[in-house]
Amino acid sequence: MTKTAAIIGGGVIGGGWAARFLLNGWDVRVCDPDPEAERKISEVLGNARRSLPGLCDAALPPEGRLSFVPHIGEAVEGADWVQESVPERLQIKLDVYARIQAVTGGEVIIGSSTSGFRPSQLAEGAAHPGAIMVCHPFNPVYLLPLVELVPTPASSDAQVATARETITGLGMYPLHLRKEIDAHVADRFLEAVWREALWLVKDGIATTEEIDNAIRYGFGIRWAQMGLFETYRVAGGEAGMKHFMAQFGPALKWPWTRLMDVPEFTDELVDLIAGQSDAQSGAHSIRDLERIRDNNLVAMMRALKAQDQGAGALINAHEARLRTGTVLAARSAEIDDPSQPVMTIHRAVPIDWTDYNGHMNEARYLDAFGMATDRFMELIGCDAGYIAAGGSYFTAETHIRHIDEVHAGARITVQTRVLAGGGKKMHLWHEMYEGDRLLATGEHFLLHVDLATRRSAPAGAAVDAALRRFAEAQAGLPRPEGAGAAIGGGR
Amino acid sequence: MTKTAAIIGGGVIGGGWAARFLLNGWDVRVCDPDPEAERKISEVLGNARRSLPGLCDAALPPEGRLSFVPHIGEAVEGADWVQESVPERLQIKLDVYARIQAVTGGEVIIGSSTSGFRPSQLAEGAAHPGAIMVCHPFNPVYLLPLVELVPTPASSDAQVATARETITGLGMYPLHLRKEIDAHVADRFLEAVWREALWLVKDGIATTEEIDNAIRYGFGIRWAQMGLFETYRVAGGEAGMKHFMAQFGPALKWPWTRLMDVPEFTDELVDLIAGQSDAQSGAHSIRDLERIRDNNLVAMMRALKAQDQGAGALINAHEARLRTGTVLAARSAEIDDPSQPVMTIHRAVPIDWTDYNGHMNEARYLDAFGMATDRFMELIGCDAGYIAAGGSYFTAETHIRHIDEVHAGARITVQTRVLAGGGKKMHLWHEMYEGDRLLATGEHFLLHVDLATRRSAPAGAAVDAALRRFAEAQAGLPRPEGAGAAIGGGR
Repeated sequence: MTKTAAIIGGGVIGGGWAARFLLNGWDVRVCDPDPEAERKISEVLGNARRSLPGLCDAALPPEGRLSFVPHIGEAVEGADWVQESVPERLQIKLDVYARIQAVTGGEVIIGSSTSGFRPSQLAEGAAHPGAIMVCHPFNPVYLLPLVELVPTPASSDAQVATARETITGLGMYPLHLRKEIDAHVADRFLEAVWREALWLVKDGIATTEEIDNAIRYGFGIRWAQMGLFETYRVAGGEAGMKHFMAQFGPALKWPWTRLMDVPEFTDELVDLIAGQSDAQSGAHSIRDLERIRDNNLVAMMRALKAQDQGAGALINAHEARLRTGTVLAARSAEIDDPSQPVMTIHRAVPIDWTDYNGHMNEARYLDAFGMATDRFMELIGCDAGYIAAGGSYFTAETHIRHIDEVHAGARITVQTRVLAGGGKKMHLWHEMYEGDRLLATGEHFLLHVDLATRRSAPAGAAVDAALRRFAEAQAGLPRPEGAGAAIGGGR
Repeated sequence: MTKTAAIIGGGVIGGGWAARFLLNGWDVRVCDPDPEAERKISEVLGNARRSLPGLCDAALPPEGRLSFVPHIGEAVEGADWVQESVPERLQIKLDVYARIQAVTGGEVIIGSSTSGFRPSQLAEGAAHPGAIMVCHPFNPVYLLPLVELVPTPASSDAQVATARETITGLGMYPLHLRKEIDAHVADRFLEAVWREALWLVKDGIATTEEIDNAIRYGFGIRWAQMGLFETYRVAGGEAGMKHFMAQFGPALKWPWTRLMDVPEFTDELVDLIAGQSDAQSGAHSIRDLERIRDNNLVAMMRALKAQDQGAGALINAHEARLRTGTVLAARSAEIDDPSQPVMTIHRAVPIDWTDYNGHMNEARYLDAFGMATDRFMELIGCDAGYIAAGGSYFTAETHIRHIDEVHAGARITVQTRVLAGGGKKMHLWHEMYEGDRLLATGEHFLLHVDLATRRSAPAGAAVDAALRRFAEAQAGLPRPEGAGAAIGGGR
């Protein structure tokens, strides 16, 4: 059954949550007094629709329904989750919780997007304190997976488990902190760096652009994949983490940061930083910068996905959950009617598959057909286990016909037919569609190989039988137009 | 003429420098008293050889020669650059500089890899202080582009310019700091975060793994592409940087960090952190972690390269420099003999083109052939300017035959022939080689399109003439084996 999220406060963060829930199949009710909220959220949603669905190599569920409601009570009535992202003023938050719980009682969890307040501060005096917890996300909420989850002792294990499941179900990562602390964990680092950066600009050591370059050309890319401690573990080398710490411990006593000191936040400093930032980034509008950022994030997370590391490993885990119980059957035997083509791909076109003009690059058609082939191989039992045991199919020849263009975010499917198969050979025919529109055909000739000798060899008996089942059942289908044709033959 | 770098100190950092210079075509002499230096550097070099050459889509120059010499004088004699990476003890560094300058005088720049010392400390009392400057790199030096370049007032503009050119020539980014400060810029941030992280572990708020996750699932991926200030500028939205600062300014006064305070570096704290790090990462050896890290960095930097952003934009700039004056001609008219196939690709196979077993994924053959087609299009004048004016070729059909496997780091070339061309049509034949070994053939049929209507239309006169020049000159070549064949035709 479709679940419903109530989003209380629809700014950048609330809008990001709305998009995250909607695109993961939840219905969403937004409550925000700002008359501009609907426009603002539709802009966030536009960004999310072009970037999030393609992050995975499996399709997200159908998008939920979005509505805007004027009263908190209406928003939260019957909701399965309430996410609060109102301004960072404690009294406002406490008032909002009281109005929510007057309707929901203690049944529904209220996740707070607060950056700084401890959950005990938020739950103090509440009718149902256990239902209130910190669920602190990171901008852009529709793309970044981190959520700091900080309950109080008033929350039951079941409530915490529900929160973890909800966050995980959205393709996010619940970082469950067992002790409360101001600003949780990540923002403490951000605050430390922010203070140091203010000093460096104020003292004329570096401009905002130089500081950004110092981060993104150096430790920023390191941290994106391993964080702090694992990075240092590698740097320490064979001598290990203790050696690394012994080496750098003494620096703690050296004057390497001014953080013992807080810079005074004068108008002059604000003007200096805002002016440098204009010089650095002013050529781009905020909308441009958002698209640049989202393109970068998608491209990097998909790069990590291919390595099954960092945030990319989280996407792979989410994808595995999405595939469970989808239209894509797990095994040949689960296909009711082997006489018809099989759907092997159902996904959105990711941003990193498109080129500067937004259409899918020619090589990505083969990425998609390659995935369709992999999926069909799984279907006949040539899966990870079979491959680990030393057998696989290698593509010997590919013939792609590009029929029509397709753009980032579009949902595509691939239907796969067996033209011939058995023994060493497998001859597949893929058709790629957006809806009913044929985008491309892929004809592929594969040879079964022995991975030890790298030479062709007959497939195992079970794989061979599963392949022949399709080949024989589909032998009666009319030959696809274009199959077996030579390049440019018909022109 | 081949240049020579002297690497004084051959640990992780010195070894990384050695690899960076060698793979960019410099001869390298290493001087390190450690009897293990040769083995250690050969391991770093192994990592670098599999990861760096494929980072660009153009080939690096032929690798330089590596030698190990016992005496500093021998290492630096006639060298074009000296890089010092000896232990972080001031007196050791000063002694090393004196021994270097006794041979080189003030002719050669000595870049110091120091993390913490100010350049004036390093140059004090030197015979030629202007030749000594901080050139602080980041691990792994062969992949990360950042170098903090900090000269003293004793350095001439010409010396600073030489340093900038040398660093840029290595595909790195010189962050030129005009004021000295302890620990330069980046390490001040690292130090601030390190202190805060020590507190969080010590106080039992989070483990090393949780802290790494807080970084790599959240702000780490943000920082990898935009750094601190541009990220906040986007977060501030239309209201701008001043609004963002006004919103977060007050937090400076809140207890969001413990950095006013320095944690005591006890054995207990070291054991706690080393133990947590073992639990987190102990399943992998340091060698494994290095490969994981390098694969991630290459994949993410190449993802940013495709977006022409962050560290990826630096790689594109370096690539443009590498292409200048290479074997790849810029224009049809520069091809002396149009009757022969043209070399359109000369590059290494990047890590992100390979799959888990290290061989190039099938779709990447089409990436390479697609680049070869783009390159051939440039050659006949269908370049960025022509495309911006509204004309281009779209691939209608592709036929790839996979003949042999190839692995990450291998140098590949593509030779391109015109089978037919003129009017709307272009029929190309690519052959991909590693040395003399044929890896694959690609037959491609393209149609010239009007980008406004997205329909086929004849090519412009100059492009058409350049294409016909090749088509006619190559008409006499024997038809390639396999051209015009249908899939699996011969089997």
